[in-house]
Amino acid sequence: MESNGFRPLDEKSLIEYIKATPSLCSKLGNQLDSLQIKEVGDGNLNFVYIVISSTSSLVIKQAIPYIRCIGESWPMTKERAYFEATTLKEHGRLCPVHVPEVYHFDRVMSLIAMRYLEPPHIILRKGLIAGIEYPLLAEHMSEYMANTLFFTSLLYNSTTEHKRAVAEFCGNVELCRLTEQVVFSDPYKVSQYNRWTFPYLDRDAELVREDDTLKLEVAELKSMFCERAQALIHGDLHTGSVMVTCDSTQVIDPEFSFYGPMGFDVGAFLGNLILAFFAQDGHADQGNDRKAYQQWILRTIEDTWNLFQKKFTALWDEHKDGLGEAYLSAIYNTPELQLLVQKKYMKELFHDTLGFGASKMIRRIVGVAHVEDFESIPGASKRAFCERQALEVAKLLLKERRGFQSINQVISAIQELHDKSSG
Amino acid sequence: MESNGFRPLDEKSLIEYIKATPSLCSKLGNQLDSLQIKEVGDGNLNFVYIVISSTSSLVIKQAIPYIRCIGESWPMTKERAYFEATTLKEHGRLCPVHVPEVYHFDRVMSLIAMRYLEPPHIILRKGLIAGIEYPLLAEHMSEYMANTLFFTSLLYNSTTEHKRAVAEFCGNVELCRLTEQVVFSDPYKVSQYNRWTFPYLDRDAELVREDDTLKLEVAELKSMFCERAQALIHGDLHTGSVMVTCDSTQVIDPEFSFYGPMGFDVGAFLGNLILAFFAQDGHADQGNDRKAYQQWILRTIEDTWNLFQKKFTALWDEHKDGLGEAYLSAIYNTPELQLLVQKKYMKELFHDTLGFGASKMIRRIVGVAHVEDFESIPGASKRAFCERQALEVAKLLLKERRGFQSINQVISAIQELHDKSSG
Repeated sequence: MESNGFRPLDEKSLIEYIKATPSLCSKLGNQLDSLQIKEVGDGNLNFVYIVISSTSSLVIKQAIPYIRCIGESWPMTKERAYFEATTLKEHGRLCPVHVPEVYHFDRVMSLIAMRYLEPPHIILRKGLIAGIEYPLLAEHMSEYMANTLFFTSLLYNSTTEHKRAVAEFCGNVELCRLTEQVVFSDPYKVSQYNRWTFPYLDRDAELVREDDTLKLEVAELKSMFCERAQALIHGDLHTGSVMVTCDSTQVIDPEFSFYGPMGFDVGAFLGNLILAFFAQDGHADQGNDRKAYQQWILRTIEDTWNLFQKKFTALWDEHKDGLGEAYLSAIYNTPELQLLVQKKYMKELFHDTLGFGASKMIRRIVGVAHVEDFESIPGASKRAFCERQALEVAKLLLKERRGFQSINQVISAIQELHDKSSG
Repeated sequence: MESNGFRPLDEKSLIEYIKATPSLCSKLGNQLDSLQIKEVGDGNLNFVYIVISSTSSLVIKQAIPYIRCIGESWPMTKERAYFEATTLKEHGRLCPVHVPEVYHFDRVMSLIAMRYLEPPHIILRKGLIAGIEYPLLAEHMSEYMANTLFFTSLLYNSTTEHKRAVAEFCGNVELCRLTEQVVFSDPYKVSQYNRWTFPYLDRDAELVREDDTLKLEVAELKSMFCERAQALIHGDLHTGSVMVTCDSTQVIDPEFSFYGPMGFDVGAFLGNLILAFFAQDGHADQGNDRKAYQQWILRTIEDTWNLFQKKFTALWDEHKDGLGEAYLSAIYNTPELQLLVQKKYMKELFHDTLGFGASKMIRRIVGVAHVEDFESIPGASKRAFCERQALEVAKLLLKERRGFQSINQVISAIQELHDKSSG
């Protein structure tokens, strides 16, 4: 485990590491005598330390060669830190406002030093559970997704650059395999890792495993996930990978990043917002029925997609005469044809988004890893009631995604199912 | 050009090379005093030597760092020989009966020594022009394609093995770019490289460049070619990459190989058979109206697809409990569901095949590289008459491919268009 110079750090040895690393000393204003260090890793995989000096601060994230929340029995390459750092830097270059700056990366130690996202930054998922509105969220997330996805695709890059980058990220295969298993496989079969709100959702989980149409569609999405190198995607863009304040939105934790289908990112984000929507009923109380907040979530879903579509096609228009080799301007040479091509592209991306978003929802209800949105609902019966609605919408979106022509129709379907269940 | 030890050989220096290479000496029975050497490279890219000793024979193929038929003004990495050798060995392992054995590979010299396919082996395309029937062709080619494509896909391999191989073949990017340009781009825009049977097809070429629906569909196929790592494809599987006798079928020249969409291979082969079909009218004479031969070509197209489908799904059935991660048997766990999944997969592959096959036909009529099937027709007017029919079928197949449910319907469409034009 401690091969090739790797040592797992703790709060004490981290201080020595910092003192021996000039770039970190300098970043902390060389004020190293009274460092405050706090381990805050609440994720499943890594150790995360907040380091505060009298003049400055930073975060240190270290990957260990197994899955933290399970232990050494589930090994997981610590090389994931390399891909996380590489993507943080690349996405940060493409969208600096919404990605924390990387100060230092040590491949041997699988250690990243980056900007500390100081309070009042909180994990978006926790904000959604608390019922906090983020008026700029759709604007910011659409900006992040449009920039990172467009500029790492063949709409902007040459084949030469694209294949070089694709090859490099093929190295992140262990994390891809984990996604394949927990998102696209386990929920559709009997697996020791699956769990659900027992006993209420027993039959629901069984129905997922018996739904041939659903399994047919999931196979197609899984193949796309494995085979289609469309852009450098974050790979785990749920609402736990976003930190927010009222006016700041920061995307973190791209250790699952690789060249995959764009819809996997957009879908992850929108799918997790839909989960948040259905969880609200479980958080409603006499002081707040959460109905207005649910409407805000739906508007955010709608705005995120519409703004993403607008920004993405605007980037495409802006760079249509650039190096991107997918759609040469000498071929797509009239405004009408350019528009047709974009409409076709965005329609396909929309359907991919719905499919991947739905599969991310399903796995959070009947798969191994659940979301705090539902987990924090007191009472299994109430939780199951919320989860079941989300599951039904997800199954509908996954199976019927090609029938949806606009995000509005998706919102209507969500509302309709919700009103019917609650009515 | 002669960097890193690379030296372009000629007939004389090749003898010295052989004498200095024990494995080649041994392969030639150590009878090196009266070697017969003949350069026979009739392709566009490389030098090919037949080497015959008194007891044995072999072929030496050397890639040079530019495109032979154009000259040093169009550089092309000689590393293509590495990918060709790698794929010859891999496809040879998977289908030894239809791939010539590699005896020796020298990466520095970009040099492959392999089995000499002795007479009466000829290039299939020449056999088709001569009107020779190959009763085993469909059986053999379907066997080659089913084995090479199935065993290099995620239906058989783990994600780990797949991504490792995908990454390696990303290195063959220059050859991929060449395909992107000459197949998916140049025919659809004004390009100095395009040519066609002048003046007869001037308007036809213009119509290709003005056909928005066609260009929309080609964009989708190009994206799939660039992004979708489905299997280790040959990458240039036209009838000039196949050598035949009555009872032997050998696939050569996989220098364009990479992890791409399966339909690109199957389509290349079937598309070139369709070109051969339409070229027959130009080769008909009083002694042979070629009508029976045209029926044989159509039967071969039909049989190739049907046998390919049968063999491919049989391999799938045989290995459904193996390491392949795309369709876990624990999920696709009933015979009915397994059948549904296969039907969906093969239907999509069929439509990909038609799309790619059609795009390969179009580029042979209005793009840079033409086929001898048409080029050898005496008289531009007669040639244009044949080419136009092929072009019309190709446009139909490309634009309406999703409407075709079986290869029979494709055959009918070909016959219908042919009868109408000839009637």
